[in-house]
Amino acid sequence: MVFEVKQVLRMKEGTDETSYVKTSYIQRQVLSLTKSLKEKAIMEIYCKEQPTTLCIADLGCSSAEPNTLGVVSELIDAIEKARREIGNGHQEYQVYLNDLPWNDFNTIFRSLGSFEDNLKKQVGNNFGHCFVNGVPGSFYGRLFPTKHLHFVHSSYSLMWLSQVPEGIEDNRGNIYIASTSPQKVVKAYYDQFEKDFLMFLRSRSQEVVPRGVMVLTILGRKSFDRYSKESCLEWELLATALNDMVFEGFIEESKLHTFNIPQYTPSAEEISFIMEKEGSFNLNQVHISEIGWEANEHYNNNNINDPSSTFDHFDFVKCMRSVAEPLLVSHFGETIIEELFKRYMEIVKVSMEKEKNVFINVTVSLTRKG
Amino acid sequence: MVFEVKQVLRMKEGTDETSYVKTSYIQRQVLSLTKSLKEKAIMEIYCKEQPTTLCIADLGCSSAEPNTLGVVSELIDAIEKARREIGNGHQEYQVYLNDLPWNDFNTIFRSLGSFEDNLKKQVGNNFGHCFVNGVPGSFYGRLFPTKHLHFVHSSYSLMWLSQVPEGIEDNRGNIYIASTSPQKVVKAYYDQFEKDFLMFLRSRSQEVVPRGVMVLTILGRKSFDRYSKESCLEWELLATALNDMVFEGFIEESKLHTFNIPQYTPSAEEISFIMEKEGSFNLNQVHISEIGWEANEHYNNNNINDPSSTFDHFDFVKCMRSVAEPLLVSHFGETIIEELFKRYMEIVKVSMEKEKNVFINVTVSLTRKG
Repeated sequence: MVFEVKQVLRMKEGTDETSYVKTSYIQRQVLSLTKSLKEKAIMEIYCKEQPTTLCIADLGCSSAEPNTLGVVSELIDAIEKARREIGNGHQEYQVYLNDLPWNDFNTIFRSLGSFEDNLKKQVGNNFGHCFVNGVPGSFYGRLFPTKHLHFVHSSYSLMWLSQVPEGIEDNRGNIYIASTSPQKVVKAYYDQFEKDFLMFLRSRSQEVVPRGVMVLTILGRKSFDRYSKESCLEWELLATALNDMVFEGFIEESKLHTFNIPQYTPSAEEISFIMEKEGSFNLNQVHISEIGWEANEHYNNNNINDPSSTFDHFDFVKCMRSVAEPLLVSHFGETIIEELFKRYMEIVKVSMEKEKNVFINVTVSLTRKG
Repeated sequence: MVFEVKQVLRMKEGTDETSYVKTSYIQRQVLSLTKSLKEKAIMEIYCKEQPTTLCIADLGCSSAEPNTLGVVSELIDAIEKARREIGNGHQEYQVYLNDLPWNDFNTIFRSLGSFEDNLKKQVGNNFGHCFVNGVPGSFYGRLFPTKHLHFVHSSYSLMWLSQVPEGIEDNRGNIYIASTSPQKVVKAYYDQFEKDFLMFLRSRSQEVVPRGVMVLTILGRKSFDRYSKESCLEWELLATALNDMVFEGFIEESKLHTFNIPQYTPSAEEISFIMEKEGSFNLNQVHISEIGWEANEHYNNNNINDPSSTFDHFDFVKCMRSVAEPLLVSHFGETIIEELFKRYMEIVKVSMEKEKNVFINVTVSLTRKG
């Protein structure tokens, strides 16, 4: 793999129809599923500590302003209610939005005006200050001063590895863990995840204040089985499209053999095992949720099993494309993209008509030991 | 004036030949003139306080990475020397780079990798952490938590006003204070500066720790006379080009009459008067420096009066263009720009051949009262 993950792992920038901003409906719905858990967690630290400035970090914020800033305003709204009940004075918030340096921070920053207007409307005049900062860098390393953060949030980011695992040359024809991947490949994927997640926890353990809280949602799996379809299917279908294009001579075979997605979708047990190994955080709560690929704007908790909700493979493919396009372009070049996603659209359509495909979200709430 | 200063007051983005990154040689040289003053000031607060995390803010950083990050590495280098002499352990730095939300932060963030590599090379392995954050927003308001900053730096930013002054309809044919501007216009410009600078100082007075330091360099003037050519000439020459184009029918007269530059170039006395009025800071030092319009890459303190140094009106016009183009485009549209700067080039050439034109820089070093 020749690309540097730090440079190509980013959601598609800008605000046009194929950009991440416009296509991240799945990520948005995951956020709504974990709303009450996040609010409970931040209230806990606020009520215990009541700091002059409450420091909040969103790690892997991407450029999708309605998602990222939506979480921030929900959190602040919750605290402001508590603050008024307790009778405390104005509260200051220091908010850090983190992502890799090649993320499109300009798009986020240019939407801050409307965020602030909405916040004031929502919370009222009796409001302190909310300072928003962009923090470019990898969360698999230090990003913040020692004992600085009260609340850390991350959603749909920690399944991205810091690099494609080494030693997976045998994963020929696949682009992720697949039914035909050798055991050795699967172990290499897990090992990279363990190494990265340990580094994440070690870094945060220095930055989070004692009794500070983290709520992390990771695209994961329920099954113990690392080959489970629930965590690999979207990539297997993309690999099918790529293999077809190799077969028809659009893509060189050797090019496909060196392409692998830098992702690992862990189970709750794996997350909890690595946490124990690191040792700085207590696990308060684990929450597993599912989200259908066809989830759309009108989706809510009530209709998750409603068979009448329309399939929308268009939206799903757009969402996948905004995530995968930068990775694919840097390896295969621009030229294959339109054709690839045309084929992927067909393959996904067939799959979604045949069965209900879901993403599994593992959410954990952790407290920094005192 | 129909445009919103927050949206159009920005240096030209990107990294191409006309971008601010490539043309900001004057700003870069101002930074080198004030180097020792900045180092002295930051050493003062470091040695007095020795904080676990030293918080530094650069206000109005623009997208010119070699300028902004160059200042940061010089400051850190100075402190690291002192730290080793004192025998202190690793130091953490929290660095905030601020500018308006429409500034090109992506360009800065994408150059952070090489900044960090250079820093490590320069300072050595025995180094703590330097965390760099982007802070989008106007410095004429709160940007940071209460009592948070140890050192504030700003260079060539505070002469930009938060808005074009009101009540200057009589400034017809001019685009800034000019010899033919009515007294009322000049007073409106000063009043806007006083209001803005007071707001700046009030905001910072809450954010800077007691005994914290600010070093501010403002494009200004030596003369008491607000009509002085030393602060107005570059705009008078641009107004000449614009008026020529009105005369020849390229630009509507009414369009020119409603265009004014949101800038004010104060004297050291005016700055010090407003500081006293606000009352939270002590003035340690005032430093006035000059920089020739023709200053070029090879410029240094020694050859400032060397008559053999070549005029380069090309560089000067490029520098002015990267500053003024976003303002001009938002008022007059794209179409006039090439023609305007062709004419400006000629006018500047004649002026620079006739006499030595200089910018006056007023640098003040302030300490937050304890």
